Amino acid sequence: MVESPQSQNALSPDELHEAWAVLSVDERLEGFRLLPAAVADDFFLGLSAREQGELILSLPPAERRTWVRLLPPDDLADLVQAVEPEQVDAILSQLDDASRREVNVLLAYSEDDAGGLMNPRFARVRPDMSIDEAIGYLRKQAREKVETVYYAYVLDAEQRLQGVLSLRQLFQAAPDKRVADVMIRDVITVAENTDQEAVSRTFSEHSFMAMPVVDEQRRMKGIVTVDDIVDVVQEEATEDIQKVGGMEALDAPYFDVGFMAMLKKRAGWLMVLFLGEMLTATAMGYFEHEIARAVVLSLFIPLIISSGGNSGSQATTLIIRSLALSEMRLKDWWRVARRELSTGLALGAVLGVVGFLRVMAWQALFHSYGDHAFLIGMTVGVSLVGVVIFGTLSGSMLPFILRRVGFDPASASAPFVATLVDVSGLVIYFTAASLFLSGTLL
Amino acid sequence: MVESPQSQNALSPDELHEAWAVLSVDERLEGFRLLPAAVADDFFLGLSAREQGELILSLPPAERRTWVRLLPPDDLADLVQAVEPEQVDAILSQLDDASRREVNVLLAYSEDDAGGLMNPRFARVRPDMSIDEAIGYLRKQAREKVETVYYAYVLDAEQRLQGVLSLRQLFQAAPDKRVADVMIRDVITVAENTDQEAVSRTFSEHSFMAMPVVDEQRRMKGIVTVDDIVDVVQEEATEDIQKVGGMEALDAPYFDVGFMAMLKKRAGWLMVLFLGEMLTATAMGYFEHEIARAVVLSLFIPLIISSGGNSGSQATTLIIRSLALSEMRLKDWWRVARRELSTGLALGAVLGVVGFLRVMAWQALFHSYGDHAFLIGMTVGVSLVGVVIFGTLSGSMLPFILRRVGFDPASASAPFVATLVDVSGLVIYFTAASLFLSGTLL
Repeated sequence: MVESPQSQNALSPDELHEAWAVLSVDERLEGFRLLPAAVADDFFLGLSAREQGELILSLPPAERRTWVRLLPPDDLADLVQAVEPEQVDAILSQLDDASRREVNVLLAYSEDDAGGLMNPRFARVRPDMSIDEAIGYLRKQAREKVETVYYAYVLDAEQRLQGVLSLRQLFQAAPDKRVADVMIRDVITVAENTDQEAVSRTFSEHSFMAMPVVDEQRRMKGIVTVDDIVDVVQEEATEDIQKVGGMEALDAPYFDVGFMAMLKKRAGWLMVLFLGEMLTATAMGYFEHEIARAVVLSLFIPLIISSGGNSGSQATTLIIRSLALSEMRLKDWWRVARRELSTGLALGAVLGVVGFLRVMAWQALFHSYGDHAFLIGMTVGVSLVGVVIFGTLSGSMLPFILRRVGFDPASASAPFVATLVDVSGLVIYFTAASLFLSGTLL
Repeated sequence: MVESPQSQNALSPDELHEAWAVLSVDERLEGFRLLPAAVADDFFLGLSAREQGELILSLPPAERRTWVRLLPPDDLADLVQAVEPEQVDAILSQLDDASRREVNVLLAYSEDDAGGLMNPRFARVRPDMSIDEAIGYLRKQAREKVETVYYAYVLDAEQRLQGVLSLRQLFQAAPDKRVADVMIRDVITVAENTDQEAVSRTFSEHSFMAMPVVDEQRRMKGIVTVDDIVDVVQEEATEDIQKVGGMEALDAPYFDVGFMAMLKKRAGWLMVLFLGEMLTATAMGYFEHEIARAVVLSLFIPLIISSGGNSGSQATTLIIRSLALSEMRLKDWWRVARRELSTGLALGAVLGVVGFLRVMAWQALFHSYGDHAFLIGMTVGVSLVGVVIFGTLSGSMLPFILRRVGFDPASASAPFVATLVDVSGLVIYFTAASLFLSGTLL
């Protein structure tokens, strides 16, 4: 690494971090080189895999090695997946053979699995070591490669996991005891191909700083550390929020997604919703004669269908998140349905009363709605109760149905529920209208 | 703790965890007592603060001590905040004086601040110790109270933070060096009153397992560990998702929120949206004569306004999440606006063409729209372009505006944007109609 003297216009690490997204490649390089050596490592490690890759590739080949070798194998695997395929060699050629092999093993796992998250370097001890020997051996491993030494994993000669010891337990134990005497045998593990969402759930149910990843023969493959779980949790939440907002998950920061890719992610769902919403034009066609006879009815259509959409959007968002956090399971659907029925009734009653009063008030003030204002008010009020109950119920049940048939509950996005409720809202509204108004307006 | 013999109907820890939410207090207690002693600790630590509190209070007073003392001070502070005020003494009376003092200090901090997250027990060394002395001293601390020994914090006689050493660095250093020779002096810290969202951002910018919390004199108060950050990240994402869905954040699992509390969280926003949506009835009133003359126009109202709402919902969700993840800043608004303008134009063009074709197709198949079908198709198509552009632009700008004036950008919920766009969508639609249809239908 070439060190530049700290100049007047050097940015602090935080300033550089903040400006990073909007800097050009050359500006990034310049800002990075102006960082004091003591903080450059930390700054580099805090970049995303994609940013690390871009930065390394913008350096002259002779300067790349330091930075590539700074990264542990799991971060290197992420980096390799983030750069263009033709650049991979420029990265991997900087590694020694052993590390390159480690990275290649990790690349064989899917990015979203425990295997894709894990670090293959972990602290290991043998069951027959004394506590003092184990501490000495850990010290040696820390000097060499292993960076995570919170837990020492106890492996037999076939690399099978026999137990675990936290550093604290190791420090607490009498120095002359054996590892096998004090280790915990009942180790919570995750399998190589466990999905990252399930891994993060296991982390939140227990409170570990790291968890071992094992294969089917219980041979230990690596560890997943809780700091990687923070990223997983952020990623999964982002996916869910974007799906709830009615689009495909982006899988990258906003400014990193190309125009066409962004369009594709958004146009797909927007078109599905549009085609669904076309049913409203068909439904409205059935009520064309009612509208022609009582144009006043059309005035409340947006108000009524959007109230159904809004209450459905609340309900579906609530249930999607609760399912994602495992606060509820599939079998709780009936409990939720009963509760949402009462909630919908209460919310609908509130909106219904306000809607009725709105019609009555405008009639009193402006005589907006002719002779049958009371009946129109009743139609609006009663439809609102029906539409809000329907919105709440369908919004809350849709995520359960989607999960039951094997889809992601988060696909029950707010706009999707709104579209569903729009069509049925029209039917509810015109049914109420024919109940209250036939013989008078209709 | 009373140990029961493992019976036939004992649940595994995972089964018990899964069933926990739906079990009665007695069933929980029974299931918990049937757990093997070796896993009961881990199970207990994996419960939420609220669940830990309920479980402890359901135990006879004589059995409470073991479990209360198992918890570190930061978790105890959370627990005390989760139980009823009149139960707090039943918990705190189980502690020794020193621990009770620690918990009381933590309770003085707001729950959402670094001070409310931190653990006051951390591993400390003196700058003039030799490396071997420091390791020995850490070992002693681990035997006593401190559970997190990944980093040793170097404090002077006034408890001011001088530097930090990771366990790995300590293990790597030559045994006869002094702590002051090898410690890192440039320590990243957080202040006691830093908001938890800012703390989690600092964690994601660096890659630490723990961070020191200091007061204004740089005296060290405790550490925040990354496993607590996982919970913070989940919590903040849940709040954002619920706000995006158009409701107040619940701050508790679905089944833990009482009926009336739930109603309040949902009715508030629903009513705001309803009052806003009433403007559509007013807007429609202005166009009543147009609708009376050309009822066919009313058929497409739901289709058109919902397309604006859907595209706005996508845009606002995307920007809210990007702002929350610091992928963009306030000053990027102009870059976003330009990009969303082109995206909106492209999306609007796609929907506009499909909408136009829909009208033409129905006309060809069913003669649905009379003599002026082409002009109606043009009206629908052009309005869609306008409405989608308007939805995309206002949906993407609203979060920036909210943040600029000091509100949470997440309040720009999908339903809120939809409501905003509904009113303007009607104006756009009827303006297009008067352009294309005056002299013919209008």
